[in-house]
Amino acid sequence: MTETMRAYRMTEWTAPPRAVEVDVPSPGPGQVLVRVAGCGLCRSDLTMRQIPRVAGERLGWAMPFTLGHETAGRIAALGAGAGGLSEGDAVALVSATSCGSCWFCVRGLDNSCPQGTTGRGYGRDGGLADYVLADRRALLPLGSLDPRHAGPLTDAGATAYHAVRRALPRIAPGGTAVVLGAGGLGAFAVQFLRVLTAARVVAVDPSEDRLAYARAIGAHEALPGVDGSTVGQLRRLTERRGADAVLDFVGTDATIAAGVASVRPGGAFGLVGSAGGGLATGWFGALPRDGEVYTFQGASIADAQEVIGLAGAGLIQNEVEEFSFDRAGDAYAGLAAGTLKGRAVVVLD
Amino acid sequence: MTETMRAYRMTEWTAPPRAVEVDVPSPGPGQVLVRVAGCGLCRSDLTMRQIPRVAGERLGWAMPFTLGHETAGRIAALGAGAGGLSEGDAVALVSATSCGSCWFCVRGLDNSCPQGTTGRGYGRDGGLADYVLADRRALLPLGSLDPRHAGPLTDAGATAYHAVRRALPRIAPGGTAVVLGAGGLGAFAVQFLRVLTAARVVAVDPSEDRLAYARAIGAHEALPGVDGSTVGQLRRLTERRGADAVLDFVGTDATIAAGVASVRPGGAFGLVGSAGGGLATGWFGALPRDGEVYTFQGASIADAQEVIGLAGAGLIQNEVEEFSFDRAGDAYAGLAAGTLKGRAVVVLD
Amino acid sequence: MTETMRAYRMTEWTAPPRAVEVDVPSPGPGQVLVRVAGCGLCRSDLTMRQIPRVAGERLGWAMPFTLGHETAGRIAALGAGAGGLSEGDAVALVSATSCGSCWFCVRGLDNSCPQGTTGRGYGRDGGLADYVLADRRALLPLGSLDPRHAGPLTDAGATAYHAVRRALPRIAPGGTAVVLGAGGLGAFAVQFLRVLTAARVVAVDPSEDRLAYARAIGAHEALPGVDGSTVGQLRRLTERRGADAVLDFVGTDATIAAGVASVRPGGAFGLVGSAGGGLATGWFGALPRDGEVYTFQGASIADAQEVIGLAGAGLIQNEVEEFSFDRAGDAYAGLAAGTLKGRAVVVLD
Amino acid sequence: MTETMRAYRMTEWTAPPRAVEVDVPSPGPGQVLVRVAGCGLCRSDLTMRQIPRVAGERLGWAMPFTLGHETAGRIAALGAGAGGLSEGDAVALVSATSCGSCWFCVRGLDNSCPQGTTGRGYGRDGGLADYVLADRRALLPLGSLDPRHAGPLTDAGATAYHAVRRALPRIAPGGTAVVLGAGGLGAFAVQFLRVLTAARVVAVDPSEDRLAYARAIGAHEALPGVDGSTVGQLRRLTERRGADAVLDFVGTDATIAAGVASVRPGGAFGLVGSAGGGLATGWFGALPRDGEVYTFQGASIADAQEVIGLAGAGLIQNEVEEFSFDRAGDAYAGLAAGTLKGRAVVVLD
Repeated sequence: MTETMRAYRMTEWTAPPRAVEVDVPSPGPGQVLVRVAGCGLCRSDLTMRQIPRVAGERLGWAMPFTLGHETAGRIAALGAGAGGLSEGDAVALVSATSCGSCWFCVRGLDNSCPQGTTGRGYGRDGGLADYVLADRRALLPLGSLDPRHAGPLTDAGATAYHAVRRALPRIAPGGTAVVLGAGGLGAFAVQFLRVLTAARVVAVDPSEDRLAYARAIGAHEALPGVDGSTVGQLRRLTERRGADAVLDFVGTDATIAAGVASVRPGGAFGLVGSAGGGLATGWFGALPRDGEVYTFQGASIADAQEVIGLAGAGLIQNEVEEFSFDRAGDAYAGLAAGTLKGRAVVVLD
Repeated sequence: MTETMRAYRMTEWTAPPRAVEVDVPSPGPGQVLVRVAGCGLCRSDLTMRQIPRVAGERLGWAMPFTLGHETAGRIAALGAGAGGLSEGDAVALVSATSCGSCWFCVRGLDNSCPQGTTGRGYGRDGGLADYVLADRRALLPLGSLDPRHAGPLTDAGATAYHAVRRALPRIAPGGTAVVLGAGGLGAFAVQFLRVLTAARVVAVDPSEDRLAYARAIGAHEALPGVDGSTVGQLRRLTERRGADAVLDFVGTDATIAAGVASVRPGGAFGLVGSAGGGLATGWFGALPRDGEVYTFQGASIADAQEVIGLAGAGLIQNEVEEFSFDRAGDAYAGLAAGTLKGRAVVVLD
Repeated sequence: MTETMRAYRMTEWTAPPRAVEVDVPSPGPGQVLVRVAGCGLCRSDLTMRQIPRVAGERLGWAMPFTLGHETAGRIAALGAGAGGLSEGDAVALVSATSCGSCWFCVRGLDNSCPQGTTGRGYGRDGGLADYVLADRRALLPLGSLDPRHAGPLTDAGATAYHAVRRALPRIAPGGTAVVLGAGGLGAFAVQFLRVLTAARVVAVDPSEDRLAYARAIGAHEALPGVDGSTVGQLRRLTERRGADAVLDFVGTDATIAAGVASVRPGGAFGLVGSAGGGLATGWFGALPRDGEVYTFQGASIADAQEVIGLAGAGLIQNEVEEFSFDRAGDAYAGLAAGTLKGRAVVVLD
Repeated sequence: MTETMRAYRMTEWTAPPRAVEVDVPSPGPGQVLVRVAGCGLCRSDLTMRQIPRVAGERLGWAMPFTLGHETAGRIAALGAGAGGLSEGDAVALVSATSCGSCWFCVRGLDNSCPQGTTGRGYGRDGGLADYVLADRRALLPLGSLDPRHAGPLTDAGATAYHAVRRALPRIAPGGTAVVLGAGGLGAFAVQFLRVLTAARVVAVDPSEDRLAYARAIGAHEALPGVDGSTVGQLRRLTERRGADAVLDFVGTDATIAAGVASVRPGGAFGLVGSAGGGLATGWFGALPRDGEVYTFQGASIADAQEVIGLAGAGLIQNEVEEFSFDRAGDAYAGLAAGTLKGRAVVVLD
């Protein structure tokens, strides 16, 4: 007799997700069954309900699928050959699919693996359920970290970490690093910059609450959103030298323009926010002189490992707001409305 | 009695340059007087005659000044304390001013020195004269290289080298590097890519002559200019993977759009050409995923040193077209008309 | 009815290997069965017959096991879930075991995976047989390269490549790279240095034949073995500056002493040879000033990929001497006696 | 009429230094005269009185010369062409000579400049006097830092910083960095590791006082000196993985052996201490697998700049013990006897 479980899932293209009862899956060879403790909700979950069938199928997505790509829990069962872990171990899951053997994967660049257009929670069954399946390679031991709250470390945390890690070689002691947008990802970035650099950290956000939180977790300076005065303010804060790095977690025309104009020669501009902005003016004089502009999606397994390491060492905070499974719909509604404080996490155990 | 010499110089803002007779300068402490053997002409010389006084003065330029920022010759006299070189030594000159003591200079990033808005040949007396003064730090020993032709190595050569050097960590053995625009700088880039990487090198240029030359100096593939089919052709050449690096020596909207679209995840797009182009579309999906976009002006002293080392070892060619001092005006006219074959060099000895 | 096959294997601790008939294995989930085309023999195979049980078991080795860790062939059968390849594809095998999920593996540092004390051919069944099993992750597509000769690329080739790759950032255009010991690995290193750098390459070996071969594949200079004059000769060749990199494929006291003494400030000394040498004198004044000393065993999957890429592009040669399976014992005898020319490869199809 | 000043100087080879009255020097072109505020004493000063003439002259030293290579003060007079600073500005001096134009200097590797065998305070007049001369390039603005105490930042501080900076790419978040020898340089290293990494920092020293101070400035763990149990303790502290970096400020056979044995695969061992130790055993199995071993002397101008930046930002402490000029001999005696607490600084203004 097969057991069943709760799952919050997409069941039809361009339709809202819903809570359903499905079979508990069994781990095949090399797979692990994880009893989910908590699963974070992400803004990108909301966009999935707008994706038409043709676009989803082009990405390789299968319908139906369970949502949730910020998952952690405890190992419930190990398939044949899935070694190095034991039942009951607390683990977080890397949700992005990566093949483990392509040019990118064997260089630790798995967030560029061509298979990454699908993942647990987008096109495959994710963690917003009592149980989820994962490959051994996707599991990150949590040690004594609480699996109910650790899920967001692997996505919101790891993505912000990747942005910071890319900029590190260009951030000098005594320099300045700027975080545009101090929401979930930006708040992680502020903390990573504080523990990994000796730079002055400036948070920029229109929300007073977010700026207060940014200060509380270590930002040295806080500026109220990007407007016509931002570039001038950043130049003053850096004694006219410009910032070593600007990390843009918003990604509008305005933040990109202010960001690239605020980087010192040889500095970095990292674009994380997917708001669709660009730069209308000519690049030659506008991009940071002899600097670096980069953008990316997601993070590597190694990034997620290091974020969990930092959280395990007590060096970063991860502010979450708990919801029960029954209130997953409310959580998504709050996320859509922007009324949440901290990352929404659906707690399942 | 002071000796006089020929000099081709700007004598008034927004007026054409002309040949005049001026005093031979004397080297002060730490300075060196160089008897010019040859001086390359650069497209940027042509733009200097359009710069209005207010713009020039904002850059710190003094009028009059002798043109010529691709200079080499032999040491004629050493000022007090300018050691390590002897009269008669063949040397090339780094033309860009750099202070030697700022944050950038002491890190070998002298092409970002704030003083670099002036240089020998732009705002200060350059090498289109029988003699030129230089600081010890600006002199690069040429060994047995011919100083009549070595000047372009320090500017056209070093700038192309800087572009290639920035991309090297992202160019894998078996990968592909693309050079958009196979003129003076691009031809250098093709050669640097061949001697410093194991990548396949693709030259793209509308001129059949340039493509033939690019092939002759090592390009594996040659494509006729950038149009709607370029991205597709590059994808086919790279087995749909994309190029490890695209170096754009043109810099129009079209080359930038085709260039960034042709870079593989994790690859590099380097913008060298100052045609003023940009990218209208949103950056998030358009820039190379987890790659690197960079632009810069000029090159460091170390870049120029390494180019001279490569030329001295016979690993690169430097195609020049000689003109006498009396024909400097003709040389500039040919440069403006695009009728030159190879870099124009005014030979002075 | 199970098929049987030929296998050349260790059957007892501290006893010589022998040819036996064993069952053809079946691929489990995620595994691939490879029909071996050719398998290279390595000097380390000879030492395996001297390892006592206690030492072997401490490494995690199982007895019996088939020898051969330089294997290539064609895919004979795919286990469940082993995708992205097809029957008949030519592939080379990475022999070292790596888990794919540890701290090292997810960063592309799989040659430091703790599981690497065993591998196909050392403690597990290797490629000196008609068939061998491998994980999907261990297979490198060969394209049109001949699988009978490609095996050594994954070990001798990849190890030499790793040594060169580690030194690349310290090898400047116009600099010098020295290869101590121009045998199998050293000959690969000479070639990698030629295609990946603009340095002058110096091969040092007591054998005239090896030096002649080194010159034939690109070494600019050849010196006859390491003795009291080597450091002086290298200083003269580098105009007293020292070499950018010295790669030591021998590893005696003499080669290490001469090697570290010949490196310029900021240069690299890479120790690959396992002859057991060290440096008796104090390190502070002896090691290259502000340089880098490194040693390692084996290579990463990415290294092997890149070597295969270079061979596929026709940029490196791989000199082999073919033996039939029946003559495997003779091949090992020749290897032990030092009478082989080129890497011994046992051809199986 | 020339003014005179106090100077503590070497007046004869192999004789003790003494306080004398000498002329105040005048700044030549490009030079700056600095009124010394404080000058740190270094253990290497003590060895200078043992250097025989032949050895000193081989290094290019001139006798007599004023001691003191950890100098800071205020600008008293500017020679012709020494721009960008004003009289009265607080500055620290880089003491090592570097030419500013060699291969190393133009790459920011000035601590490898061949001219670095002399410097202010070793073979040239140093800062243990009322005034000292320096090139513009050797001056580092101090902003509001107290010049009486800043001298040691440029030598003890910058050397420790260089050691840490070299290791940074190998120190992962959640990893471990070990400092062997927690004296002057080691105490700086502990602090740099805390502000620039998220690693656990372990200080090892036989002195309880030093360990207490190391804890006070941020070391997470403190171990009592190197003995037979050190490797085991470090393995336990790192959960058997090994340290990401071990920086050895002692440099005996014992510290080197324990240090290299404690580094994880891929980690770094940096030798700073000049006690003359080495490693008797074979390197192949003993050096950290695929890691990095390095040693060096001194630091670059950029290193000193960054240390001053960190001190200016209040991120590091610099414990000094003040002496008047008249008590310079007592200070050296205390340094020789090991009875000082903090770096001895002779205060001159």
